[in-house]
Amino acid sequence: MRLAVYGYGNLGKGAALAAKAADDASLFGIFTRRDPKNVEKQTDAPVFAAAELEAQLDRFDVLLLCGGSAADLPALSPALAAETQLVESFDTHARFPAHFAAVDAAAKAGGHLALVGGGWDPGLFSCARILADAILPHSRTQVLYGPGVSQGHSNAAAGVRGLAAARAYTIPISLSDGDFAGAPTEKLHRRVVYAVPDGSRPPCDVEREILAAAPYFSPENTEVRFVTAAEFAAQHESLSHAGKVTSRGQLCGSVAESVFSLTMDSNPRFTGAVLVACARAVDRMARRGVRGALTMADLSPADLSPRPRGELLKDFM
Amino acid sequence: MRLAVYGYGNLGKGAALAAKAADDASLFGIFTRRDPKNVEKQTDAPVFAAAELEAQLDRFDVLLLCGGSAADLPALSPALAAETQLVESFDTHARFPAHFAAVDAAAKAGGHLALVGGGWDPGLFSCARILADAILPHSRTQVLYGPGVSQGHSNAAAGVRGLAAARAYTIPISLSDGDFAGAPTEKLHRRVVYAVPDGSRPPCDVEREILAAAPYFSPENTEVRFVTAAEFAAQHESLSHAGKVTSRGQLCGSVAESVFSLTMDSNPRFTGAVLVACARAVDRMARRGVRGALTMADLSPADLSPRPRGELLKDFM
Repeated sequence: MRLAVYGYGNLGKGAALAAKAADDASLFGIFTRRDPKNVEKQTDAPVFAAAELEAQLDRFDVLLLCGGSAADLPALSPALAAETQLVESFDTHARFPAHFAAVDAAAKAGGHLALVGGGWDPGLFSCARILADAILPHSRTQVLYGPGVSQGHSNAAAGVRGLAAARAYTIPISLSDGDFAGAPTEKLHRRVVYAVPDGSRPPCDVEREILAAAPYFSPENTEVRFVTAAEFAAQHESLSHAGKVTSRGQLCGSVAESVFSLTMDSNPRFTGAVLVACARAVDRMARRGVRGALTMADLSPADLSPRPRGELLKDFM
Repeated sequence: MRLAVYGYGNLGKGAALAAKAADDASLFGIFTRRDPKNVEKQTDAPVFAAAELEAQLDRFDVLLLCGGSAADLPALSPALAAETQLVESFDTHARFPAHFAAVDAAAKAGGHLALVGGGWDPGLFSCARILADAILPHSRTQVLYGPGVSQGHSNAAAGVRGLAAARAYTIPISLSDGDFAGAPTEKLHRRVVYAVPDGSRPPCDVEREILAAAPYFSPENTEVRFVTAAEFAAQHESLSHAGKVTSRGQLCGSVAESVFSLTMDSNPRFTGAVLVACARAVDRMARRGVRGALTMADLSPADLSPRPRGELLKDFM
């Protein structure tokens, strides 16, 4: 399958590297809204201006749309789903149904297939929760995130006026295996924001605005620490992350527990690799005539896998 | 969906309880090859003789075929797949492709859909391995089983002449998180067989025959311990089990790890619950016109879930 990447931030770079690494994929090119000449290339694929996308639509099979959920995807995903098969990683949980409906309508109108919310959460973690719920009725599930960098929270903090840079870490409470805390997910984590002031505003004003940036931060479990640009560069450039889905259910007097956990040095590289696997399923399902929007809960492991059925039966069962 | 259970050993009992527990399923009845009058009922569902199955085929949607992989399923699965939608749990890894092909041909000839190898391994663990392999090319995966009772090995040991009962435990080596041992799976586990002699043969002969029961036991990592019937009843009736799939992959200089683990008080009850979720997917996919044999790698989480799409989008993404 020939893949193209649209948007060349951290996630776009991860997706481009994953497309190059997959044996069954080739990277046709990268579309950027910046000046292509100023893009630092990590692969030998050509870089195009975003405006050229329409002219190139027949030269690739699936577009990996790598934009942010706050500003980019609400407009871009429906617009591009009308034009091509695509995979994106919308991750604002509260707005998921409305965004899915908009992409579904656009993809159906254009006769295309779009995968919404690819990645690990939503995505793989959604699938783990749905599986546990499907097998163990009335089960309880707990999701813990981190320790790791939250890209969405980092972007929200960095957008506060008066900051040169910011990075937000999500830190889960410590629980023994099998323990469940009765609190909602937000109460099971704390956030630490490392921020570099640009000197244009009093730090206390900046701090108050970060803490007030609902729904991203709640003051009672957020700490803001101001650091120098040098300290920030030395200690806060990692994009590592982790997460864990634990589910426990009752089966007529007997208990079962499932745990699905991920740890990754680079969240955008791992998420990019998930998007490439999703593109494989989208490419196959589109050729079988499936249209509209899907989530990862609609994809089978076999459709995500590059391996033929005979190999799956022989080596994975 | 209306479910029926065929075969009423430990797995059949677990499947019947899971069918009763699922909000979207009803248990039409249980078919047994024993005399129905002698069956200890755990639910209020009627018990029929296996010979009555043919006359009742139009009274349920999916048959949960709960037989053993050594003697029952190689013949029963193809024969019944020609007659009805079914879900079974064939788990002899080496013979999987041939068994799958036989069920696939029979199901297609009869115009039915059959799920082969449902459960946790093969099944959920197969899916976890396929997913990790699909996302992280060239990843390494390690599967550790137990500590827990291996039903297949227990049956193999109990079949040795001179024993009144036997139970085989699988015990994994201890590894720290993220560590991988380079040995094949068999070398990463030891087995302990607790056996009750019936007095008809010299214990040493019995021991030697258990150790020689390839492919089930390899002498270098198996211990046999003879116990009294009273000790066996007091300490070795648990059917608990556990397992863990760990995968690590490289993404251009960055590492990611996924772990999927299960622990269960009762292996047959958990496996029965997986089979009911599989029956849900089989029922839906059969109504969409899918025919032949599938494995759990062909099922999407959404098809396994009892919840409607709107609820999955709102509460699980």
